Amino acid sequence: MKRIAALKKIAFEKANFDSYLIFNPSNLTYFTGTQGASALLIPADGECTIYVYGVNYEQTRAMSKGFSVDLVKRGEDMMAKIAEQLSQQKTKKLAIDFLGVESWRVLLKHVRGKTRLATKPGIASRLRAIKDDDEIELMRKAAELTSVGMKTAYEILNAGMKEIELAAEIEYAMRKHGSYGTAFDTATSSGSASAFPHGGCTDRKIREGDLVVVDIGAIYKNYRSDMTRTLVVGKPSKKQQEIHGIVKQAQEKAFSAIKAGSDAHDIDFEGRQVIEKAGYGEFFVHGLGHGVGLDVHEPPTLNPSSKEKLQAGNVVTDEPGIYLVGYGGVRIEDTVLVTMDGAEKLTIGPYGLGNE
Amino acid sequence: MKRIAALKKIAFEKANFDSYLIFNPSNLTYFTGTQGASALLIPADGECTIYVYGVNYEQTRAMSKGFSVDLVKRGEDMMAKIAEQLSQQKTKKLAIDFLGVESWRVLLKHVRGKTRLATKPGIASRLRAIKDDDEIELMRKAAELTSVGMKTAYEILNAGMKEIELAAEIEYAMRKHGSYGTAFDTATSSGSASAFPHGGCTDRKIREGDLVVVDIGAIYKNYRSDMTRTLVVGKPSKKQQEIHGIVKQAQEKAFSAIKAGSDAHDIDFEGRQVIEKAGYGEFFVHGLGHGVGLDVHEPPTLNPSSKEKLQAGNVVTDEPGIYLVGYGGVRIEDTVLVTMDGAEKLTIGPYGLGNE
Repeated sequence: MKRIAALKKIAFEKANFDSYLIFNPSNLTYFTGTQGASALLIPADGECTIYVYGVNYEQTRAMSKGFSVDLVKRGEDMMAKIAEQLSQQKTKKLAIDFLGVESWRVLLKHVRGKTRLATKPGIASRLRAIKDDDEIELMRKAAELTSVGMKTAYEILNAGMKEIELAAEIEYAMRKHGSYGTAFDTATSSGSASAFPHGGCTDRKIREGDLVVVDIGAIYKNYRSDMTRTLVVGKPSKKQQEIHGIVKQAQEKAFSAIKAGSDAHDIDFEGRQVIEKAGYGEFFVHGLGHGVGLDVHEPPTLNPSSKEKLQAGNVVTDEPGIYLVGYGGVRIEDTVLVTMDGAEKLTIGPYGLGNE
Repeated sequence: MKRIAALKKIAFEKANFDSYLIFNPSNLTYFTGTQGASALLIPADGECTIYVYGVNYEQTRAMSKGFSVDLVKRGEDMMAKIAEQLSQQKTKKLAIDFLGVESWRVLLKHVRGKTRLATKPGIASRLRAIKDDDEIELMRKAAELTSVGMKTAYEILNAGMKEIELAAEIEYAMRKHGSYGTAFDTATSSGSASAFPHGGCTDRKIREGDLVVVDIGAIYKNYRSDMTRTLVVGKPSKKQQEIHGIVKQAQEKAFSAIKAGSDAHDIDFEGRQVIEKAGYGEFFVHGLGHGVGLDVHEPPTLNPSSKEKLQAGNVVTDEPGIYLVGYGGVRIEDTVLVTMDGAEKLTIGPYGLGNE
């Protein structure tokens, strides 16, 4: 309810809407405290209404407190129900977090000109970008579980093992220690596939000398974490060590620049500059980082065109990389909490290329 | 390319559009054969264009054959690039599979009235609903891996084990046998949470006498599977056996009605009637099934308001359930291939309440 109060301040006092309507699943979880709702209507005054289909009705009733829970029965049109409620509340200006164009038109038809609609995803995402103490605790736990998974990767990586077998062991370790699932598709891309930032994991057998990009995340009570290390099977080559050293230096440089008040694009610049100066600038093909929370990718973003300033309570990734097509890639990533005077790594683990 | 030819037949010859624009990630995988593209423009004549950001550019170039791959550089507006291409192709009527209302407006602005836009998700989803032989092979494999996971659940379920530990063992077994990941969040909801169809899995300890709904799916090369069994820890009670028996009978009744040409709502009716006659109709709070493929939920749907007719090559779930709030729930589900004269179960495994 604290979150809804904060939303009301932004949406109604500052931005002058008189209701906010939420469809995005993670936004719904953030404000209702549970999963399974299909929509949430937050009016400036009066009770908030959760709209839910039969399949999730009982669970939503049991898990969400302080809301009116409206069952959308089979054959009923949820948008018509929402429009009816908007009409009863005499809503003139409605902000919506996100909607597909087809559903937008259905809602528009039902409100028959009595309510003006606008999409305002930023209202919810600005709130979600600043984690409160409860959220930070959950993210700390998710990061801890992720670090356990990474420790396992270092322990068991071996030539002859398939990428999906490596993923199996990592996920198993995270689960056994208490993870609620994987924050995103586990990546253990090896050999030339390591040069693809989203190389995923396949049934390829990992070979002696391969670079292996291990990009993993645990979930703890809906909160996610994100961590990457790059390993080499066996003894790393000079070139592998060189690239790895540059990426590590870039990651550290960016990390040391993170604090509340910094411009997000400056953090990207700090890391990027290290890689550019080393002559690999064109092979760092993505932004330095992104926010993490209920979603694995959420605001703020840290890239050359970011316009945000970091704030205390942001949780972001710091993940520079160098990707050489036909050769392999290196990425190093931690999930990092932004504080007033710096930053704190939530994911913890060694950075080496292996256990050599 | 066979898929694109089939799409052209529907979209351009029958429906009279002159380009189809795809944004949905699974649709992109279906037509490009890879992941990572951000959009795909299929014109009636001429080459198809994949739009891709830098982070996935090299992977998309390597993995997709026969497309023009257009890199969206940092700071470039993808919608502006697409509009430029539409203008060059003199596209008058463009069908789009799916788009958020904000992006829709950006595209609309860029085409400056020269192209009419319409959303037509059905063009792609109708094609995807009928699996070709290659897809059926992959789905067979995904189902086989899922069945391995379920076998593990029967073998290891024990009082005192946490729901997430049960999930850990199931996912580990699927991975070790070759699964590329989990098709959806593994559910091992126990005790009163089993009465919630989407009960998920938590750190709750499973107790003697609990109903445990195990709902799992493996992935094989992007194709998913979906399977549920309900188990009891220890000796099942009379009531547990009774409910389980009714759900099993409903599942069989529905299965025996599945064949090409059947109305989807009739299949739902066959299963639902068994549960209604037994007096539990109000506790079967969802549809009987849904299509499965690249997505775990895709057309066709099998519920009382479905309008589709089943076709050979559809892959659907058959999953009736009874959910008694405060007591527990039972669901039984298989992934099923629709054939000309019947149906074939792809997920295979015992149906019992346990190893008693």
